[in-house]
Order: sequence, then structure tokens, then C-alpha cells
Amino acid sequence: MYTCEITQRIRYGETDQMGYVYYGRYAEFYEIGRTELIRQMGITYRNLESNGIMLPVIKMAVKYHKPAAYDEIITIRTQLRSMPTARITFFYEILNENGELINEAEVQLVFTDSVSRKPVRPPGNLLYALKPYFSVT
Amino acid sequence: MYTCEITQRIRYGETDQMGYVYYGRYAEFYEIGRTELIRQMGITYRNLESNGIMLPVIKMAVKYHKPAAYDEIITIRTQLRSMPTARITFFYEILNENGELINEAEVQLVFTDSVSRKPVRPPGNLLYALKPYFSVT
Amino acid sequence: MYTCEITQRIRYGETDQMGYVYYGRYAEFYEIGRTELIRQMGITYRNLESNGIMLPVIKMAVKYHKPAAYDEIITIRTQLRSMPTARITFFYEILNENGELINEAEVQLVFTDSVSRKPVRPPGNLLYALKPYFSVT
Amino acid sequence: MYTCEITQRIRYGETDQMGYVYYGRYAEFYEIGRTELIRQMGITYRNLESNGIMLPVIKMAVKYHKPAAYDEIITIRTQLRSMPTARITFFYEILNENGELINEAEVQLVFTDSVSRKPVRPPGNLLYALKPYFSVT
Repeated sequence: MYTCEITQRIRYGETDQMGYVYYGRYAEFYEIGRTELIRQMGITYRNLESNGIMLPVIKMAVKYHKPAAYDEIITIRTQLRSMPTARITFFYEILNENGELINEAEVQLVFTDSVSRKPVRPPGNLLYALKPYFSVT
Repeated sequence: MYTCEITQRIRYGETDQMGYVYYGRYAEFYEIGRTELIRQMGITYRNLESNGIMLPVIKMAVKYHKPAAYDEIITIRTQLRSMPTARITFFYEILNENGELINEAEVQLVFTDSVSRKPVRPPGNLLYALKPYFSVT
Repeated sequence: MYTCEITQRIRYGETDQMGYVYYGRYAEFYEIGRTELIRQMGITYRNLESNGIMLPVIKMAVKYHKPAAYDEIITIRTQLRSMPTARITFFYEILNENGELINEAEVQLVFTDSVSRKPVRPPGNLLYALKPYFSVT
Repeated sequence: MYTCEITQRIRYGETDQMGYVYYGRYAEFYEIGRTELIRQMGITYRNLESNGIMLPVIKMAVKYHKPAAYDEIITIRTQLRSMPTARITFFYEILNENGELINEAEVQLVFTDSVSRKPVRPPGNLLYALKPYFSVT
């Protein structure tokens, strides 16, 4: 298991007329979370792409518990619970300034060869960096 | 059961550098779909709000099958499969110009009193308009 | 001079907590306007790109007069006032349902070779299609 | 004169298929810049709103010099060059990681009473905090 946290301040442009963050904008927060998690593994998503690997999202499931308001600082907690195969699943908890859970999500992506558009194994250096967090006793 | 279809042309600003619609932007298409569905029931979401009812999203689940590209015309097929209670669930199929299913989703919202922020029954005129499509034999 | 009109219904996700369309979202409406204008010339922007031409925006100026509200149908009026050179300038008027001017803008783009990233002449078929609207007597 | 700097990492969802930040997304960066500037004056925009003051944008002018790419860290430099009246004008420079100017902008907003929707003087505490930076010799 590997967990990563990063904060973001809510932009005015992310709210809608209900006065809260628009439900579709959280997808960007999840994206920020997984980008940071793999950066902590010493890999950038930017690098993956220039090495011919794309990571399209194939599944997203969100449960919204509370709203987030303009100017609030939210915490994006991203978790990897198992070693990725061709698929990688990130689990998310978004917390507000009081530490309350405002929503939780699961986002699944596929390592894809950008030429053949076929699923591929994750890059070796990512697997190597993740291994210690998922080692079997 | 009640189904509604509406089309949208993909904007350049909706794509990302993968060359396809960003996964988070579909939330707006789902929103367009349900807005149209309830408009066909003779009710506008705008009116609901001015009558003190908010409809926050509490759940969204998406399966992405194929990408959508810039300038394509997609069809947003929105379906209501049961009479709403305080909760209303919309089922979506997004189709490309060849009629292929590009993604499917389920979005659940709660009728909420905008003052008390408590769940409420859907407005009578909406229930009345929907009833014929869900009548038991 | 060539003018093109197209309508759009305001999405909930386009509003912010002020209750109006977020000022940055109009850029997408301007993009829709120019895409339609060149489509009426028999050319798609999608095609330009696959022929190795990019059209990055180099200048945008907007004056906001009135707000646009959720669910309103706005008219995007796009105007070309002179033949494009390597640069093309679109003039915009956004009108609400009562025909009132809600904002006006000017957006300038450059025809750019996608390999060399250098400015290029507009494609011949676009110039040919536009010529009748700008012919000198 | 008062200048404020804040950085932002470019999100994948902020790019378009040209591979750069979509031209309309910079509006959010300008918004972040001015929010920070007034926060440094001891005032939050959130507070202004709860005190009945809205700040709609009435003018925006942007010159785009270079693109910004995914995952880059940009600097948003926001400048106030004169004491606000009912209108306040922010000047922006967006810089990339190499300190190069990627775009510059000017955004004008109006202090507006949220009930009467009429222009109003800026709040006294904002004027008081800004005064030292604009004092005449």
C-alpha cells in the first residue's frame, strides 16, 4: 500500500451556482493526486508519455458526501492498494480543512502503447519503485 | 422508463493532449442529458432552483469504452428507469457518430431543500409528468 | 466581411457561484464560433490540423457587458472583417435571448506549421472560399 | 505598485490536443493571482462576497507569447499599478520554469453591491492596506 497527500486551494472557476465545486471538476483533483503519487516513485507521467505510454481512464466511481467551497484548501489523499498490472487503480479520499471526508473515488487506468493502442505492462522502473510497498512477507 | 437523446459537438477545449475528450468533461454531458430529460417533462432545472430545490450529485460511476474526438457529434442518451424518490438516478450512454457506445454512466442526485439542506420529495408536477412512463399494469 | 451565427445553451457547469457564466468559459464559445465560420467555408479545423496546420491563439480581448445565466440560449455571432494573412482575427458578439449584447471580443490566431512551428500562409482553399466576401470593386 | 507571485503546476486537464494549456484556462490562473494579491492585503475575496460585494470581470486582454505544457510549474505574477476606485485593474505576467514570459494580461473588475448590482467604492480595509504601496511623495 502506498499513500500520497497533496493539497489544493479551490478556485472560483471551479464552483458552480450552487456555491460549491462542480461535481465534474473533482476529476482534475484525482488526476493531480495520481500524478503526485507516481512522481514520488521517481517517475513523471510526462515521461511515460514521451516513452510511448498513454494512461487513459477506463473507470471512475465517485461518492460525494459533502461539498467543497471556494478558497478552501482540500487534501487529495491518493492510495495504491495493489501492484499495477496493465491496469492501475487509484483510491481517493478528498478531505476538507476540518479533516472531514468530502468525497471518495476509485479511478482505473490502462497502460497503453501509444502506437498500437494496446494494453502493455507498466514500465519496469515504476514496478521496481512500487515493489517495496507491496512486498509479501 | 423514459429515454431522452440530445447531441453535442465536441469542443477543442474539451480535449486534452491525448487528443481525446478529457475524462472529467463527460460530467457536463451527463448534466446536459438530465437537464433535457426533465425539460421534456415540462420542468426546468432552473425552475426547480428558483422554487427552493437543489439537486446535488451524490454518486457518479462511469465506464469509458472508447474516446471521443474533437468536432465529433456525440449523442447523449439519458434514461430514467424508475420513479424518483428523494433520490433520482439517471443512466447514460454516450454514442459516437457511428452509433458506437463510447461510455456509460450512472449519476444519482438528491432533491434537497435549499434552505434546510434536507432531502425532500420531488416536486409534484415532475412526479405527475413521469408517472405515465412508469405505471404498473 | 463574413458573419456566422450559432447558438449554445448555457451548462450548469459553466456557471460559478456568482450565478453567471464564469468569465473564462467564454473562450470556448469563441472557439465554437470560429469553428463554425470556417466550416461554412467548407473547411474543418480538424482537417487543417491533419494537414499539418495549427492555429494557436495569440491575442484575446473581451469586454463583458452583461452576465449570461444557466440554461439561457446565447447566440455567438462571429465575424471576419478582412482576408486572413498568416494571422486571422475573429470579432465576436455574444447575445442573450432578448438579443442584448452581453459581451464582445476579438481573438487573433496564427496559421502555424505544426512541424516547423513557423507562421504559414492560410490554406488556398480557405482563401478561395473567403475571397467573394472580401472582393474589392 | 504592489506585486504578488504564486506558482501553479499545469494539470493534464488544462491541456488541449495541441499539447499545450488551452487558451481559455489562463483566466483561472489570473483569478488565482488576484485572489492571492488581495489575501496578502489581509482580505479574502470570500469575505468580500459575504460582506455583500461582488467583483465581476468587465474587461480582459491577453497576449499569448509562448505555450505552457503539462506538468510545468508556472509563475503567476500579479500587479496592481494604481489604487482601485470602483474599478480595479490587475496586470499579469505568466512565466515558465525558465523564467520566460509566456503570456501577459490585464483584467479589470468592478466592486459591485450584490443587492443593488451597482458599482461601489472598494472596502475601506482594502484601501487602507493598499495605501502604503501607492503613497504620493
